[in-house]
Amino acid sequence: MACSIGRSLDVVGEWWTPLIVRDVYIGLRRFDEIQRNLSMSRKVLTQRLNALVSAGILEREAYQDRPPRHEYLLTEKGRELAVVLMALMAWGDRWVSDEAPALLRHSSCGHDTIPTVCCSECGEPMHADAVHVHPGPGARMGPGTSELAKLFSAG
Amino acid sequence: MACSIGRSLDVVGEWWTPLIVRDVYIGLRRFDEIQRNLSMSRKVLTQRLNALVSAGILEREAYQDRPPRHEYLLTEKGRELAVVLMALMAWGDRWVSDEAPALLRHSSCGHDTIPTVCCSECGEPMHADAVHVHPGPGARMGPGTSELAKLFSAG
Repeated sequence: MACSIGRSLDVVGEWWTPLIVRDVYIGLRRFDEIQRNLSMSRKVLTQRLNALVSAGILEREAYQDRPPRHEYLLTEKGRELAVVLMALMAWGDRWVSDEAPALLRHSSCGHDTIPTVCCSECGEPMHADAVHVHPGPGARMGPGTSELAKLFSAG
Repeated sequence: MACSIGRSLDVVGEWWTPLIVRDVYIGLRRFDEIQRNLSMSRKVLTQRLNALVSAGILEREAYQDRPPRHEYLLTEKGRELAVVLMALMAWGDRWVSDEAPALLRHSSCGHDTIPTVCCSECGEPMHADAVHVHPGPGARMGPGTSELAKLFSAG
Protein backbone atom coordinates (compact mmCIF):
# COMPACT_ATOMS: atom_id res chain seq x y z
CA MET A 1 0.00 0.00 0.00
CA ALA A 2 1.50 3.32 -1.09
CA CYS A 3 0.61 5.15 2.10
CA SER A 4 2.94 5.67 5.02
CA ILE A 5 0.06 5.42 7.47
CA GLY A 6 -0.89 2.04 6.01
CA ARG A 7 2.72 0.87 6.01
CA SER A 8 3.13 2.02 9.59
CA LEU A 9 0.02 0.07 10.55
CA ASP A 10 1.49 -3.03 8.94
CA VAL A 11 4.23 -2.71 11.53
CA VAL A 12 2.38 -1.39 14.57
CA GLY A 13 -1.30 -1.81 13.74
CA GLU A 14 -2.00 -4.90 15.83
CA TRP A 15 -3.91 -3.99 18.93
CA TRP A 16 -1.27 -4.92 21.54
CA THR A 17 1.76 -3.67 19.70
CA PRO A 18 1.70 0.00 20.73
CA LEU A 19 1.19 -1.04 24.36
CA ILE A 20 4.19 -3.35 24.20
CA VAL A 21 6.27 -0.47 22.82
CA ARG A 22 4.96 1.72 25.64
CA ASP A 23 5.84 -0.90 28.25
CA VAL A 24 9.39 -1.33 26.99
CA TYR A 25 9.75 2.43 26.76
CA ILE A 26 8.69 2.88 30.37
CA GLY A 27 11.09 0.22 31.56
CA LEU A 28 9.39 -3.17 31.43
CA ARG A 29 11.96 -5.05 29.43
CA ARG A 30 11.40 -8.68 30.25
CA PHE A 31 8.85 -11.03 28.80
CA ASP A 32 7.24 -11.87 32.14
CA GLU A 33 6.97 -8.23 33.20
CA ILE A 34 5.23 -7.24 29.99
CA GLN A 35 3.03 -10.31 30.05
CA ARG A 36 1.91 -9.59 33.63
CA ASN A 37 1.37 -5.90 32.95
CA LEU A 38 -0.79 -6.42 29.89
CA SER A 39 -2.43 -9.67 31.09
CA MET A 40 -2.09 -10.97 27.58
CA SER A 41 -1.51 -14.51 26.37
CA ARG A 42 2.10 -15.67 26.25
CA LYS A 43 1.58 -16.93 22.73
CA VAL A 44 0.36 -13.61 21.38
CA LEU A 45 3.05 -11.69 23.25
CA THR A 46 5.71 -13.97 21.75
CA GLN A 47 4.34 -13.30 18.25
CA ARG A 48 4.19 -9.56 18.79
CA LEU A 49 7.70 -9.36 20.26
CA ASN A 50 9.11 -11.38 17.35
CA ALA A 51 7.33 -9.09 14.89
CA LEU A 52 8.66 -6.00 16.65
CA VAL A 53 12.20 -7.38 16.54
CA SER A 54 11.81 -8.29 12.85
CA ALA A 55 10.53 -4.79 12.15
CA GLY A 56 13.56 -3.26 13.84
CA ILE A 57 11.55 -1.56 16.57
CA LEU A 58 12.86 -3.70 19.43
CA GLU A 59 16.15 -5.50 19.87
CA ARG A 60 16.91 -8.44 22.11
CA GLU A 61 19.83 -8.27 24.48
CA ALA A 62 21.07 -11.12 26.66
CA TYR A 63 21.26 -10.33 30.34
CA GLN A 64 22.00 -13.84 31.56
CA ASP A 65 23.74 -16.85 30.01
CA ARG A 66 22.62 -19.87 32.03
CA PRO A 67 19.80 -20.27 31.49
CA PRO A 68 19.78 -17.86 28.54
CA ARG A 69 17.60 -14.87 29.25
CA HIS A 70 17.18 -11.68 27.32
CA GLU A 71 15.44 -8.39 27.61
CA TYR A 72 14.01 -6.03 25.03
CA LEU A 73 15.25 -2.57 24.21
CA LEU A 74 13.88 0.05 21.84
CA THR A 75 15.95 0.82 18.76
CA GLU A 76 16.14 4.37 17.42
CA LYS A 77 13.21 3.52 15.13
CA GLY A 78 11.34 2.31 18.20
CA ARG A 79 12.18 5.38 20.26
CA GLU A 80 10.86 7.63 17.51
CA LEU A 81 7.69 5.55 17.41
CA ALA A 82 7.37 5.98 21.18
CA VAL A 83 7.28 9.74 20.64
CA VAL A 84 4.40 9.36 18.17
CA LEU A 85 2.61 7.25 20.79
CA MET A 86 3.04 10.16 23.21
CA ALA A 87 1.04 12.31 20.79
CA LEU A 88 -1.62 9.59 20.66
CA MET A 89 -1.60 9.49 24.46
CA ALA A 90 -2.14 13.25 24.60
CA TRP A 91 -5.09 12.90 22.21
CA GLY A 92 -6.50 10.16 24.44
CA ASP A 93 -5.98 12.28 27.55
CA ARG A 94 -7.91 15.10 25.93
CA TRP A 95 -10.69 13.17 24.24
CA VAL A 96 -11.06 9.74 25.78
CA SER A 97 -9.81 9.60 29.37
CA ASP A 98 -11.39 11.57 32.20
CA GLU A 99 -8.10 12.29 33.89
CA ALA A 100 -4.59 11.73 32.61
CA PRO A 101 -3.31 8.37 33.93
CA ALA A 102 0.28 9.43 33.26
CA LEU A 103 2.11 12.70 32.95
CA LEU A 104 5.20 13.35 30.89
CA ARG A 105 7.93 15.63 32.14
CA HIS A 106 10.18 16.98 29.43
CA SER A 107 13.60 16.78 31.03
CA SER A 108 15.08 19.24 28.53
CA CYS A 109 12.93 22.07 29.87
CA GLY A 110 11.78 20.59 33.17
CA HIS A 111 8.05 21.03 32.60
CA ASP A 112 5.17 18.62 32.35
CA THR A 113 4.38 18.59 28.67
CA ILE A 114 1.55 17.86 26.29
CA PRO A 115 3.23 16.30 23.26
CA THR A 116 1.95 18.38 20.37
CA VAL A 117 2.32 17.77 16.65
CA CYS A 118 4.06 20.83 15.22
CA CYS A 119 5.28 21.98 11.83
CA SER A 120 8.97 21.23 11.27
CA GLU A 121 9.32 24.50 9.36
CA CYS A 122 7.57 27.16 11.43
CA GLY A 123 7.30 25.28 14.73
CA GLU A 124 3.62 26.09 15.21
CA PRO A 125 1.13 23.42 16.31
CA MET A 126 -0.52 21.79 13.32
CA HIS A 127 -4.23 21.94 12.74
CA ALA A 128 -5.93 19.63 10.30
CA ASP A 129 -7.56 22.55 8.49
CA ALA A 130 -4.22 24.20 7.73
CA VAL A 131 -2.65 21.33 5.83
CA HIS A 132 -2.75 20.62 2.12
CA VAL A 133 -1.96 17.05 1.08
CA HIS A 134 -0.23 16.60 -2.25
CA PRO A 135 1.52 13.68 -3.96
CA GLY A 136 5.09 12.89 -2.98
CA PRO A 137 7.85 11.11 -4.92
CA GLY A 138 6.49 7.71 -3.82
CA ALA A 139 2.91 8.42 -4.92
CA ARG A 140 1.27 5.75 -7.05
CA MET A 141 -2.13 4.23 -7.67
CA GLY A 142 -2.94 1.04 -5.83
CA PRO A 143 -4.99 -0.54 -3.10
CA GLY A 144 -5.50 2.01 -0.40
CA THR A 145 -4.73 4.99 -2.56
CA SER A 146 -6.59 4.60 -5.88
CA GLU A 147 -9.23 7.22 -5.14
CA LEU A 148 -6.65 9.45 -3.49
CA ALA A 149 -4.67 9.45 -6.72
CA LYS A 150 -7.75 10.72 -8.54
CA LEU A 151 -8.25 13.44 -5.96
CA PHE A 152 -4.61 14.41 -6.35
CA SER A 153 -4.78 14.55 -10.14
CA ALA A 154 -8.02 16.53 -9.95
CA GLY A 155 -6.50 19.01 -7.49
CA MET B 1 -7.54 0.20 31.04
CA ALA B 2 -6.02 3.21 32.79
CA CYS B 3 -3.79 4.22 29.91
CA SER B 4 -4.63 6.85 27.34
CA ILE B 5 -2.81 4.93 24.64
CA GLY B 6 -4.90 1.85 25.40
CA ARG B 7 -8.09 3.88 25.51
CA SER B 8 -7.19 5.54 22.24
CA LEU B 9 -6.61 2.13 20.70
CA ASP B 10 -10.06 1.06 21.86
CA VAL B 11 -11.36 3.81 19.60
CA VAL B 12 -8.91 3.74 16.71
CA GLY B 13 -6.97 0.50 17.12
CA GLU B 14 -8.72 -1.58 14.48
CA TRP B 15 -6.53 -1.93 11.43
CA TRP B 16 -8.71 -0.03 8.94
CA THR B 17 -9.83 2.75 11.22
CA PRO B 18 -6.90 5.15 10.84
CA LEU B 19 -7.05 4.76 7.07
CA ILE B 20 -10.76 5.61 7.08
CA VAL B 21 -10.00 8.74 9.10
CA ARG B 22 -7.24 9.58 6.61
CA ASP B 23 -9.60 9.11 3.65
CA VAL B 24 -12.29 11.33 5.12
CA TYR B 25 -9.67 13.89 6.03
CA ILE B 26 -8.33 14.00 2.49
CA GLY B 27 -11.80 14.42 1.05
CA LEU B 28 -13.31 10.99 0.44
CA ARG B 29 -16.58 11.45 2.29
CA ARG B 30 -18.92 8.92 0.79
CA PHE B 31 -19.22 5.25 1.58
CA ASP B 32 -18.57 4.08 -1.97
CA GLU B 33 -15.52 6.30 -2.40
CA ILE B 34 -13.92 5.03 0.79
CA GLN B 35 -14.87 1.45 0.00
CA ARG B 36 -13.30 1.65 -3.48
CA ASN B 37 -10.19 3.40 -2.21
CA LEU B 38 -9.47 0.89 0.52
CA SER B 39 -10.81 -2.15 -1.37
CA MET B 40 -12.33 -3.32 1.89
CA SER B 41 -15.51 -5.26 2.50
CA ARG B 42 -18.71 -3.23 2.70
CA LYS B 43 -19.65 -5.04 5.89
CA VAL B 44 -16.43 -4.17 7.70
CA LEU B 45 -16.52 -0.58 6.43
CA THR B 46 -20.08 -0.21 7.73
CA GLN B 47 -18.99 -1.48 11.15
CA ARG B 48 -15.98 0.82 11.28
CA LEU B 49 -17.93 3.89 10.17
CA ASN B 50 -20.61 3.21 12.77
CA ALA B 51 -17.94 2.83 15.45
CA LEU B 52 -16.27 6.08 14.39
CA VAL B 53 -19.60 7.91 14.54
CA SER B 54 -20.34 6.40 17.97
CA ALA B 55 -16.91 7.46 19.17
CA GLY B 56 -17.53 11.02 18.03
CA ILE B 57 -14.72 11.02 15.49
CA LEU B 58 -16.95 11.19 12.41
CA GLU B 59 -20.39 12.68 11.95
CA ARG B 60 -22.94 11.84 9.29
CA GLU B 61 -24.47 14.61 7.23
CA ALA B 62 -27.26 14.15 4.69
CA TYR B 63 -26.48 15.45 1.23
CA GLN B 64 -29.54 14.05 -0.51
CA ASP B 65 -33.09 13.24 0.60
CA ARG B 66 -34.50 10.86 -2.00
CA PRO B 67 -33.03 8.34 -1.76
CA PRO B 68 -31.43 9.32 1.55
CA ARG B 69 -27.69 9.65 1.21
CA HIS B 70 -25.15 10.96 3.62
CA GLU B 71 -21.50 11.70 3.77
CA TYR B 72 -18.99 11.61 6.60
CA LEU B 73 -17.20 14.57 8.12
CA LEU B 74 -14.53 14.72 10.80
CA THR B 75 -15.51 16.23 14.12
CA GLU B 76 -13.02 18.35 16.07
CA LYS B 77 -12.00 15.18 17.94
CA GLY B 78 -11.48 13.52 14.55
CA ARG B 79 -9.50 16.43 13.15
CA GLU B 80 -7.15 16.32 16.14
CA LEU B 81 -6.74 12.59 15.59
CA ALA B 82 -5.89 13.28 11.94
CA VAL B 83 -2.98 15.43 13.12
CA VAL B 84 -1.66 12.55 15.25
CA LEU B 85 -1.91 10.33 12.16
CA MET B 86 0.25 12.89 10.33
CA ALA B 87 2.96 12.26 12.91
CA LEU B 88 2.57 8.51 12.34
CA MET B 89 2.80 9.12 8.59
CA ALA B 90 6.03 11.07 9.08
CA TRP B 91 7.42 8.17 11.10
CA GLY B 92 6.42 5.78 8.31
CA ASP B 93 7.98 8.04 5.68
CA ARG B 94 11.22 8.01 7.61
CA TRP B 95 11.39 4.40 8.70
CA VAL B 96 9.12 2.26 6.55
CA SER B 97 8.52 3.77 3.10
CA ASP B 98 11.27 4.28 0.55
CA GLU B 99 9.87 7.54 -0.71
CA ALA B 100 7.11 9.67 0.74
CA PRO B 101 3.84 8.81 -1.04
CA ALA B 102 2.29 12.09 0.11
CA LEU B 103 3.61 15.46 1.15
CA LEU B 104 1.95 17.87 3.53
CA ARG B 105 2.07 21.59 2.93
CA HIS B 106 1.45 23.66 6.03
CA SER B 107 -0.74 26.44 4.70
CA SER B 108 -0.01 28.68 7.71
CA CYS B 109 3.64 29.01 6.71
CA GLY B 110 3.52 27.79 3.11
CA HIS B 111 6.18 25.09 3.44
CA ASP B 112 6.14 21.35 3.03
CA THR B 113 6.30 20.08 6.57
CA ILE B 114 7.36 17.04 8.54
CA PRO B 115 4.84 16.83 11.38
CA THR B 116 7.01 16.63 14.48
CA VAL B 117 5.99 15.88 18.05
CA CYS B 118 7.10 18.84 20.13
CA CYS B 119 6.93 19.91 23.76
CA SER B 120 3.96 22.17 24.49
CA GLU B 121 6.09 24.13 26.96
CA CYS B 122 9.42 24.79 25.26
CA GLY B 123 8.43 24.01 21.66
CA GLU B 124 11.42 21.77 21.03
CA PRO B 125 11.05 18.39 19.27
CA MET B 126 10.59 15.61 21.77
CA HIS B 127 13.02 12.73 22.05
CA ALA B 128 12.15 9.58 23.91
CA ASP B 129 15.27 9.80 26.05
CA ALA B 130 14.34 13.24 27.37
CA VAL B 131 10.97 12.34 28.86
CA HIS B 132 10.21 11.18 32.36
CA VAL B 133 6.88 9.41 32.81
CA HIS B 134 5.15 9.86 36.14
CA PRO B 135 1.65 9.10 37.46
CA GLY B 136 -1.14 11.52 36.64
CA PRO B 137 -4.42 12.19 38.47
CA GLY B 138 -6.07 9.26 36.68
CA ALA B 139 -3.35 6.74 37.58
CA ARG B 140 -4.53 3.47 39.04
CA MET B 141 -3.57 -0.18 39.11
CA GLY B 142 -5.34 -2.44 36.67
CA PRO B 143 -5.01 -4.52 33.55
CA GLY B 144 -2.51 -2.87 31.31
CA THR B 145 -0.91 -0.78 34.03
CA SER B 146 -0.31 -3.03 37.06
CA GLU B 147 3.44 -3.32 36.57
CA LEU B 148 3.64 0.32 35.55
CA ALA B 149 2.12 1.29 38.88
CA LYS B 150 4.90 -0.60 40.65
CA LEU B 151 7.52 1.15 38.54
CA PHE B 152 5.90 4.45 39.40
CA SER B 153 5.83 3.77 43.12
CA ALA B 154 9.43 2.55 42.99
CA GLY B 155 10.54 5.68 41.15
